[in-house]
Amino acid sequence: MKLATLRTSSGSTTAALATGADTYLALPATDVGALLVQPEWRSITKKAAEAAAEGGQPVIAATEADFAPLLPRAGKVICCGLNYGDHIQEMGRELPEFPTLFAKYADTLIGAADVVEVHGSGRVDWEAELAVVVGSELFRADEDQARAAIAGYTVANDVSMRDWQNRTLQWFQGKAFDATTPVGPVMLTADDASESFEVRGYVNGELVQQGNTSTLVFGPAQLLSYISQFTVLRPGDLVLTGTPGGVGMGMTPPRFLNDGDILTTEIDGIGRLENQFRIHAPVPANA
Amino acid sequence: MKLATLRTSSGSTTAALATGADTYLALPATDVGALLVQPEWRSITKKAAEAAAEGGQPVIAATEADFAPLLPRAGKVICCGLNYGDHIQEMGRELPEFPTLFAKYADTLIGAADVVEVHGSGRVDWEAELAVVVGSELFRADEDQARAAIAGYTVANDVSMRDWQNRTLQWFQGKAFDATTPVGPVMLTADDASESFEVRGYVNGELVQQGNTSTLVFGPAQLLSYISQFTVLRPGDLVLTGTPGGVGMGMTPPRFLNDGDILTTEIDGIGRLENQFRIHAPVPANA
Repeated sequence: MKLATLRTSSGSTTAALATGADTYLALPATDVGALLVQPEWRSITKKAAEAAAEGGQPVIAATEADFAPLLPRAGKVICCGLNYGDHIQEMGRELPEFPTLFAKYADTLIGAADVVEVHGSGRVDWEAELAVVVGSELFRADEDQARAAIAGYTVANDVSMRDWQNRTLQWFQGKAFDATTPVGPVMLTADDASESFEVRGYVNGELVQQGNTSTLVFGPAQLLSYISQFTVLRPGDLVLTGTPGGVGMGMTPPRFLNDGDILTTEIDGIGRLENQFRIHAPVPANA
Repeated sequence: MKLATLRTSSGSTTAALATGADTYLALPATDVGALLVQPEWRSITKKAAEAAAEGGQPVIAATEADFAPLLPRAGKVICCGLNYGDHIQEMGRELPEFPTLFAKYADTLIGAADVVEVHGSGRVDWEAELAVVVGSELFRADEDQARAAIAGYTVANDVSMRDWQNRTLQWFQGKAFDATTPVGPVMLTADDASESFEVRGYVNGELVQQGNTSTLVFGPAQLLSYISQFTVLRPGDLVLTGTPGGVGMGMTPPRFLNDGDILTTEIDGIGRLENQFRIHAPVPANA
């Protein structure tokens, strides 16, 4: 199953189920997070699909779907850095014993096809990532419990303002610009997911990042278990699993997004984010 | 005015106003954050105080007040590190050009007299801090706008699990243990606040930290303005302004909290946190 959060003509949002026939079916929840807090979300979704199969249910054509951030009100958005072997080497570091974690807020999230407006940074970089959606509450959970609590997987780009990120030792301020982290377009439910995912990032159609989540140092269940040792994870929380090699900062010379660039983030079997960037700041020389 | 969030006998919480006669008066909001989202919170509070002065309103004796975390559902809890000159020197660093910021979630907060239960860390350290409560929405605000948006000030201790904090470059995991950051007991409204505050921390009654917020590198309004350049701040959000010298990690040899220790955090004119610690982990040698 694939679930989305779609904007509606009334200015609100609705959770929706992708149906086989290239359409979306509205579900009785304002967004995927609000759906997941209902323990019976799978049967709610199944019943809606059955009702739709019998006809008469309003559907939204996939071409007309307006994707809101998948989890617009996520309580926690926790990110792992330095989690792909090749990206770790690119940044000049050794394989870690513990995951490097940082937090952001739901205000950073933006929809799968939205224009991203950046104010005040001239070093806007990309980080294509697999993101894990929490489906049930987790606290001091082992890896098996964590695996069972995964609702599904989605695509994210942890877009980073490298000038702000590198102002101090803590990355938060370069990672927390409102409405700059695209996430979506859908959550693929865990029961339909394969063992690993191929993650790719493109700038203006040029492939810049590629990695397979089978090479993650800390996999999804391991990350959720680790985080749950110190803080509770709840339905609709989001964990970003880190980015493979190929970020702009690691290039020689460094390369950043320019005003008008299109950033595409893609995971086979889940979907694709395609976001144009408007950079409202003088872009300094790449040095 | 001093506002608190008190636990009620029904298992809920209520915002409350400290009255002159060593009592608290319940206000029509579940907590101080829920009060502050109402733009007319000052007149709501004033009317309740007037009604109480005329008698007949139920009051809670200060000795019986059970303090919940001041802002149990704060959307953002943003902390500044390395913000007192003496603490910066203690950590062996130079005065910064930009504030070092990191994020935590409201789940980390705990009440002013609560027992703090720590699982899985043997290096529990203290960071006494002045915290700023946001009173109105701020986005890309200058310092004057930020100053006008401060609802008030409270006391916090950014208790840090140094073993977890130092596992990786990012401090988050050592700062984000649920229910380990005491905050309260009250918010002193900005209109009653002095220019600067004296912040003190004690372990089992022994003074270990002392600093005056007049020596902050980045003051409250400056911090709020800076943060608002990249993310919106809303009523009830909390910004911790950093800790003065005297943390356990900076001592020779390093010193950490032991099971049963009492941590006291005090700011003249606001109030005092007094929290006993239960450390549910073998404490490794201090080295």
